[in-house]
Amino acid sequence: MVFLTRRATFSASHYYWNEAWSEEKNRQVFGKCANRNGHGHNYTLEVTVAGEPDPVTGFVVDLKWLKDVIEEKVMAAWDHRHLNLEVPEFATTIPTSENIAIAAWKRMEPVIAGAGGARLDRVRVYETPEIFAEYRGEA
Amino acid sequence: MVFLTRRATFSASHYYWNEAWSEEKNRQVFGKCANRNGHGHNYTLEVTVAGEPDPVTGFVVDLKWLKDVIEEKVMAAWDHRHLNLEVPEFATTIPTSENIAIAAWKRMEPVIAGAGGARLDRVRVYETPEIFAEYRGEA
Amino acid sequence: MVFLTRRATFSASHYYWNEAWSEEKNRQVFGKCANRNGHGHNYTLEVTVAGEPDPVTGFVVDLKWLKDVIEEKVMAAWDHRHLNLEVPEFATTIPTSENIAIAAWKRMEPVIAGAGGARLDRVRVYETPEIFAEYRGEA
Amino acid sequence: MVFLTRRATFSASHYYWNEAWSEEKNRQVFGKCANRNGHGHNYTLEVTVAGEPDPVTGFVVDLKWLKDVIEEKVMAAWDHRHLNLEVPEFATTIPTSENIAIAAWKRMEPVIAGAGGARLDRVRVYETPEIFAEYRGEA
Amino acid sequence: MVFLTRRATFSASHYYWNEAWSEEKNRQVFGKCANRNGHGHNYTLEVTVAGEPDPVTGFVVDLKWLKDVIEEKVMAAWDHRHLNLEVPEFATTIPTSENIAIAAWKRMEPVIAGAGGARLDRVRVYETPEIFAEYRGEA
Amino acid sequence: MVFLTRRATFSASHYYWNEAWSEEKNRQVFGKCANRNGHGHNYTLEVTVAGEPDPVTGFVVDLKWLKDVIEEKVMAAWDHRHLNLEVPEFATTIPTSENIAIAAWKRMEPVIAGAGGARLDRVRVYETPEIFAEYRGEA
Repeated sequence: MVFLTRRATFSASHYYWNEAWSEEKNRQVFGKCANRNGHGHNYTLEVTVAGEPDPVTGFVVDLKWLKDVIEEKVMAAWDHRHLNLEVPEFATTIPTSENIAIAAWKRMEPVIAGAGGARLDRVRVYETPEIFAEYRGEA
Repeated sequence: MVFLTRRATFSASHYYWNEAWSEEKNRQVFGKCANRNGHGHNYTLEVTVAGEPDPVTGFVVDLKWLKDVIEEKVMAAWDHRHLNLEVPEFATTIPTSENIAIAAWKRMEPVIAGAGGARLDRVRVYETPEIFAEYRGEA
Repeated sequence: MVFLTRRATFSASHYYWNEAWSEEKNRQVFGKCANRNGHGHNYTLEVTVAGEPDPVTGFVVDLKWLKDVIEEKVMAAWDHRHLNLEVPEFATTIPTSENIAIAAWKRMEPVIAGAGGARLDRVRVYETPEIFAEYRGEA
Repeated sequence: MVFLTRRATFSASHYYWNEAWSEEKNRQVFGKCANRNGHGHNYTLEVTVAGEPDPVTGFVVDLKWLKDVIEEKVMAAWDHRHLNLEVPEFATTIPTSENIAIAAWKRMEPVIAGAGGARLDRVRVYETPEIFAEYRGEA
Repeated sequence: MVFLTRRATFSASHYYWNEAWSEEKNRQVFGKCANRNGHGHNYTLEVTVAGEPDPVTGFVVDLKWLKDVIEEKVMAAWDHRHLNLEVPEFATTIPTSENIAIAAWKRMEPVIAGAGGARLDRVRVYETPEIFAEYRGEA
Repeated sequence: MVFLTRRATFSASHYYWNEAWSEEKNRQVFGKCANRNGHGHNYTLEVTVAGEPDPVTGFVVDLKWLKDVIEEKVMAAWDHRHLNLEVPEFATTIPTSENIAIAAWKRMEPVIAGAGGARLDRVRVYETPEIFAEYRGEA
């Protein structure tokens, strides 16, 4: 078993806000992140698949194919977007790094599982070089 | 003469939009950056001052003081903000990396010049690790 | 389960020295690290907690709280310090990256466990970008 | 148990080519990597060993010894080499990051196991900062 | 005047060899780099242009245009290539970082000058993160 | 003219202390850096030479020679050392990044000038990735 990882980056806006709370409570819990005008990040997405290298190609998966999966399932919907306002997952879920990692997993896992070769092992999301969240599925 | 540099980072949203243009023209020129919901970046600001090291302290400037200048003049106004909507310089000027570098210079240069020790030599702004703009004043 | 990580950096001095050994033996085993005047590093500490994102906040833990835990339990005692001379754990234990990772775990784990939300999953310590040690507890 | 990691870098050439295929098929599957003149990378090798820190030295393994193992078993044979043309493992196996990670494991694991202290835990190979493969042995 | 920089990366093979010298002399001067099978690097190219930001767009140059110039003039000819064997400039000139920087300048400068907006200010080439060469033209 | 740069790293301890001042004054001006036990950093030294590439080798200078100069003139004296206690330049001069850059210049400039090929253009010293000082000589 080999674990193969590809990184990709996207730039997006977000804010933290719980509609059930007052503005005061939102500011108290979320601080500067509660600014409704939004702020943004250069996110780095790290996608790891696990499998046996194909003896003919030496590939766990074709990295060009993995790039396309990331591009079509995540980048096309999230890059240069406002996550709260434009991405369905975050209409009612706060786009923390934790929830972004889970959402990226859910977007890509069925495609990778359906391809029959390798399985998605983990998704890591860096909000900054200092903060990142990792999701490995529900098992 | 020694050139002393301090880096700082901030997270902000922005978009590119020229009010004098149609939506079509804005999208044609600015592409994905014309999204009015905004997108964002982790910006890195690199501030360089030039001067002689003080023989008593060994400092061109006190780096704690320089940190405070960056904090008060730039970070307090820009970090976790939407540059177009909340920062006066960008009400009518598009917040490209080029203009962000000039604006950061204008915010800090008078304070550094007024302190009498070193002069501001250059301001560099990284929008991503792959793209940055540098301003060295008008001379 | 999501794994959430925050990095922090500190600057410290240390040396490697076993009091039970001769100077010659110390120099033979520890090389340049046996210099009793000490040398130093910019250490990077990577703290990972594991848990379910809170459905109300989207947080595994509040990152501001995690920053405070790191600050109070590790940074306040280690940053800008000589580890051998000023940190109790290293009075009799050599401050290798391995032992620094274990000591950081022991300082933070009870606070994180006591908070009731997430558990400490791992602590990683980079002595340089090329060398790092990771501790995941005793289980 | 502590996991101790050391990084090393090497520069090498490679190409992707399956002798059983036509040139057309090779180009279709491997794209630009099928160029028989070769292209190259600055590879980063990350070697992780696991064990208990020695109570006398504080070491899981002596990092100078680990550096020597990496140097003698991998660097001496791979650095500034053409992997397909000069490295026996890749005479018939395509030098993808996946296969390079497995080959590095096989070169170092017996020496590390034979030393009796720690076990080799994982080998990670970065082909670029965006792409890496990790091998953890056959269990 | 603002200096705007864009980075791009390419992977290529090269070797150092002076045809006028014996093999022995080549090995003595160029060491491991004289291996005629070639070795390779992930090169990073840093292209800086200088000019006034356009008051209408805020751009010194359109970064998408600059990306296209880099792509067409350098990447298409050098990426995934063997510099000595496939790139005309290096048929008789040794592809050191110094000469690669000069060659990249010569490929891009006429296009940038011809566009009439900004001028090419400098080209920097990183062979590794530890070694880089910079060329600023002939003046 | 091409500018060729090589990086090297060293680990050292230092403190900031002016013997002419009281302990109170030292703590007030230098803060945590006034701790007489010392603290340390992984310093990165960036050495840039300027010259014409030799038409025969393609080198501004031989990078192996430049590595030896850095090694013999700086690393041998500073790496794994306490700068205040073991390095003559810092017996009476405070080892700030500014003064370290000047001292590195003075150690290397005569050797590089004496070799007759290229001139030393600048020396940059990173104390951390966020703070660096650069010296370009006295002209």
